[in-house]
Amino acid sequence: MNKYPSDQETHAKYYGQICEKVKQDAFARFLGIKLLELGEGTATAELVVDDRMLNAHGTAHGAVIFSLADFVFAAACNSYGKTAVALSMNIGFLAPSFQGALLRATATEERRNNRTAWYRIRVESENELVATLDALAYRKNDYFVPIETE
Amino acid sequence: MNKYPSDQETHAKYYGQICEKVKQDAFARFLGIKLLELGEGTATAELVVDDRMLNAHGTAHGAVIFSLADFVFAAACNSYGKTAVALSMNIGFLAPSFQGALLRATATEERRNNRTAWYRIRVESENELVATLDALAYRKNDYFVPIETE
Amino acid sequence: MNKYPSDQETHAKYYGQICEKVKQDAFARFLGIKLLELGEGTATAELVVDDRMLNAHGTAHGAVIFSLADFVFAAACNSYGKTAVALSMNIGFLAPSFQGALLRATATEERRNNRTAWYRIRVESENELVATLDALAYRKNDYFVPIETE
Amino acid sequence: MNKYPSDQETHAKYYGQICEKVKQDAFARFLGIKLLELGEGTATAELVVDDRMLNAHGTAHGAVIFSLADFVFAAACNSYGKTAVALSMNIGFLAPSFQGALLRATATEERRNNRTAWYRIRVESENELVATLDALAYRKNDYFVPIETE
Repeated sequence: MNKYPSDQETHAKYYGQICEKVKQDAFARFLGIKLLELGEGTATAELVVDDRMLNAHGTAHGAVIFSLADFVFAAACNSYGKTAVALSMNIGFLAPSFQGALLRATATEERRNNRTAWYRIRVESENELVATLDALAYRKNDYFVPIETE
Repeated sequence: MNKYPSDQETHAKYYGQICEKVKQDAFARFLGIKLLELGEGTATAELVVDDRMLNAHGTAHGAVIFSLADFVFAAACNSYGKTAVALSMNIGFLAPSFQGALLRATATEERRNNRTAWYRIRVESENELVATLDALAYRKNDYFVPIETE
Repeated sequence: MNKYPSDQETHAKYYGQICEKVKQDAFARFLGIKLLELGEGTATAELVVDDRMLNAHGTAHGAVIFSLADFVFAAACNSYGKTAVALSMNIGFLAPSFQGALLRATATEERRNNRTAWYRIRVESENELVATLDALAYRKNDYFVPIETE
Repeated sequence: MNKYPSDQETHAKYYGQICEKVKQDAFARFLGIKLLELGEGTATAELVVDDRMLNAHGTAHGAVIFSLADFVFAAACNSYGKTAVALSMNIGFLAPSFQGALLRATATEERRNNRTAWYRIRVESENELVATLDALAYRKNDYFVPIETE
């Protein structure tokens, strides 16, 4: 019978590979998102709003704010080496932000079960809360790191 | 006392300017989103998923799907010439999509009040439902077209 | 190896038992909710707003509207005899309703996978849309009807 | 020209009347919900899950958990004496709870604008997080306390 390693074990043992995987996000690279921190179920990242990232009203595009939030969510829920995908996300836009702004997003884990996990994400611009999200991940029966079962 | 024109009147009278405004969305242009249709409270648009639009697992990025949905939402809620901004959006990811896929999103209006309006958005890839969203807009006391009050 | 019956097979074979189970919802009985229809992934139910179901402003309580919506969601996602539980729900309150109103809710299935399923719920009062919801269910590896595996 | 009092002023001056109004919630009384605390944009309340509050699977009904959360949300967003109504709410069900459980919900304000305000709600059962919600309120141009404008 297979015994799987714990989430803590895989996070610690494969930390370098997990960070590499998270950084392979092509869309995040395209937008210039920088990963600042990756922990067990947590992640922080930054993005500078440039002139390609504005909406028709000239403010920071909601989809850009969402993209940064989605990146830290993906990093946090994949931080154990087990493949996780987004099921649903709810975003509230609390305040506008503008060209040149440095946006910072942090994801924290509210709860993690075998198959599902819940994250809270906050996006700030210079200490003003710009958006908050709740996000739900589905955890597949797959690892993207080479775990060994006993 | 000012009497404002109806939403139907401004939509019809300023249709060309409204379409121009909607197309000024810099982020949508950056992603190659094409507006296919704009009506009263409705919009349809398309996007081809290219290699910059993938996530770390190699499938179409959730934030790209959201971006397309957000674009048709913005188009639909601004279709009356009155400035509208997103308050909240809830996205469910029903099925994955892949590089090369043609994504099509449609927004329809569930209800429109003076200050708030509700939209339903569906994103499909070759007739498979990829994502659904509910989106809530706040309608400002501003017009981005040169209305005349009586 | 166990081969499970299809969702269609269990829905048809155990339809009576599934309806009984759905009606065992104690809170729905407490509120006087009536199940009108149960199909494969669909359900319709009604509720009359009485004087216990008002909020502090004297209109129909949002939680009562939610309760009716939650009931048809639960009925729809459990309509195959396989135990399903709510993961997340998003409700938009489009219009107020009032004491004496007959509320009718319908749930339809947007997508059903092995482990997750998505539902759209609309709550109406005399053909006016009062609320819309997206709801996500988790489908356990359990049946509440006595299926036979091969 | 009318000058309105600040939210802090009305909260302090009419605190007793605001508490009375919040407690007039008929559905909350029907369920036995107890208000424990009401502050500026915050509220805490409790509920004991009894045998009328179970779902068909025999656990605490999601709509009961929602009802408690909705009550603290309503209390928090009406805590300034200005009439506020729910626009949208998103609930995640993180863990089941059971008959006899004491549920406690707390609402905190994430942001408050002139017309809209955002709340975060957590529902716990004996220090286990049962549900989290984001909730958005619309603030009307009405007061339910007898303010004086200058």
